[in-house]
Amino acid sequence: MRTTTGWQADGPTATLRRTPLRRRELRPDDLAVRIDYCGVCHSDLHALRAHDGATDRPLVPGHEFTGVVTGTGPAVTRFRTGDRVAVGNIVDACDECPMCRAGQENFCHAFPTLTYGGTDRRDGSATLGGYAREYVVRDRFAHPLPAGLDPAAAAPLLCAGVTVWEPLHALGVGPGSRVGVAGLGGLGHLAVKMAVALGAATTVVSRSPDKAGDARRLGAHEFVLSTDPEQLAGARERFDVLLDTLSVPHDLGPCLRLVALDGTLSRLGHLGPVTVETTDLLIGRKKLSSAGSGGLPATAAMLDFCAEKNITAEIELLPSAQSNQALDRLSRNDVRYRFVLDMSDLD
Amino acid sequence: MRTTTGWQADGPTATLRRTPLRRRELRPDDLAVRIDYCGVCHSDLHALRAHDGATDRPLVPGHEFTGVVTGTGPAVTRFRTGDRVAVGNIVDACDECPMCRAGQENFCHAFPTLTYGGTDRRDGSATLGGYAREYVVRDRFAHPLPAGLDPAAAAPLLCAGVTVWEPLHALGVGPGSRVGVAGLGGLGHLAVKMAVALGAATTVVSRSPDKAGDARRLGAHEFVLSTDPEQLAGARERFDVLLDTLSVPHDLGPCLRLVALDGTLSRLGHLGPVTVETTDLLIGRKKLSSAGSGGLPATAAMLDFCAEKNITAEIELLPSAQSNQALDRLSRNDVRYRFVLDMSDLD
Repeated sequence: MRTTTGWQADGPTATLRRTPLRRRELRPDDLAVRIDYCGVCHSDLHALRAHDGATDRPLVPGHEFTGVVTGTGPAVTRFRTGDRVAVGNIVDACDECPMCRAGQENFCHAFPTLTYGGTDRRDGSATLGGYAREYVVRDRFAHPLPAGLDPAAAAPLLCAGVTVWEPLHALGVGPGSRVGVAGLGGLGHLAVKMAVALGAATTVVSRSPDKAGDARRLGAHEFVLSTDPEQLAGARERFDVLLDTLSVPHDLGPCLRLVALDGTLSRLGHLGPVTVETTDLLIGRKKLSSAGSGGLPATAAMLDFCAEKNITAEIELLPSAQSNQALDRLSRNDVRYRFVLDMSDLD
Repeated sequence: MRTTTGWQADGPTATLRRTPLRRRELRPDDLAVRIDYCGVCHSDLHALRAHDGATDRPLVPGHEFTGVVTGTGPAVTRFRTGDRVAVGNIVDACDECPMCRAGQENFCHAFPTLTYGGTDRRDGSATLGGYAREYVVRDRFAHPLPAGLDPAAAAPLLCAGVTVWEPLHALGVGPGSRVGVAGLGGLGHLAVKMAVALGAATTVVSRSPDKAGDARRLGAHEFVLSTDPEQLAGARERFDVLLDTLSVPHDLGPCLRLVALDGTLSRLGHLGPVTVETTDLLIGRKKLSSAGSGGLPATAAMLDFCAEKNITAEIELLPSAQSNQALDRLSRNDVRYRFVLDMSDLD
């Protein structure tokens, strides 16, 4: 086994502690990656809260990271030592089901192997995430990090980025599209940048008036204050696509009323049951969808697009030793717009 | 006022009684229509059950009917006395809102005037439906009944027909599409005929094995028995569009599992809140939509399509004096596939 160091959940207190970790020896199709930067995702918070240190398997969060290849198995041809790479929230899949064959490994019928909190398909071990100095990953599930993308600010593209890219892409957003982004956080700010770069007329919908300036700075063409009934009424049926990035459950009725005829409300940023009034869909023939992470081809396309358009996340970079503080601040929404941990302090 | 005869709800017993009715004198843009045939819709049943005879305004059901023009107001140019016409579930709208301007009068921001149970926009009177011998309707909301369509079997096209046509059309169903129809009733059997005529590979999904023969006879290419786990598993992710026509609330999870990557589940046939698990949408990037009735252009296009493809409903024709029996049998699902009332017994 290889050894590295990372931030592992300490059961009773649900805080992260610096801990020696084991990684598997390289298989023929594996890369060893020195992790330089890892984004802090809302999922990390959920995973920590749900983790029972007494009974669950070890938890090391982190599923959007960038780094450099430090070793390759003998069958690896796509990467060489020294290459910049990026890894997202899945690290393996069955390769054989219709979804895998369609390049949607994130929807693998046999369930994809998650970057952390998953189970390795070959040895059955628990996967430990990217809040660590090294990761060992099957080559197919690593992406070359395009030149020009800052590796720290690019890390959040691998989860937050592709999560907003997939619906924008699948729903055909481009010049002439009218896109709304509800919630300007980790997902939302990347959605704004991408929608604008895709040529869409882009509007931020937020309950925080102090986000208006940021919205404009990120490129949004308009801002709708959702606590102002007049502004909300003025935005009725305005959006062909409305990405709802709010991380808390809420009534989808007001969002659906902003969706145009034949438009789509894509609910991101929160899992669990959602309830809608059929008439809120029926009137205007609206659609409700969701999205989360992405397949390998979409992730590669998103990275190329971001490199071409110079899109990365707005980040606050912290040493990895501050991972607990980052998560705590994230839980209080005290972040603009994504924390990224610098792993060099683990050396 | 004009007078006619119809079947009006008797409050205490919620049954229909033959009653003299009043219709307005023709306005400049009105037609008088002798109703020959009126379909019996599930909505009629709901309306009757919800009707409080003691306090509510009079209720005469019926919102899918065909007949012949017997008189026209002086501004009417599209119709002449003797023309065959068809009327659906809305008879007026504001004409001015974005939805009306888009030809989606059924989504009128000021709410369309319903054929029955609505309020006339000009005189404030209660609209009384098509279980009657005569109707007076604004010309814009009547459709020429294309030659070749049997007027009795065509009546259900005006509500059930356009309700399934709109999603098939809006979702781009055509050759190469894979369409599922869950539930083979009034809506479902028309959905099958239309999907087949549009060139889609069409499958009926039903819990009734005895519907398999009918499904084939209606043109469906396949039949999936939803109570057979093996057949259900075999149909996983098969449909680009799944029209769920079940008239009762049910878990949408099993339906969503039949929807293909980027496909749509369109929930028809029932209003009220629906709950879905976000992950059932997320995995496979599926969409949930709904539909009900249609705008004037879509209704006209649907009638032309049905005339071209020789599509009408499978009906059981009853004298209007049996309207109560028809509703009672409908409530017990004892109908293949739509009751139509013959109004000539009201003369």
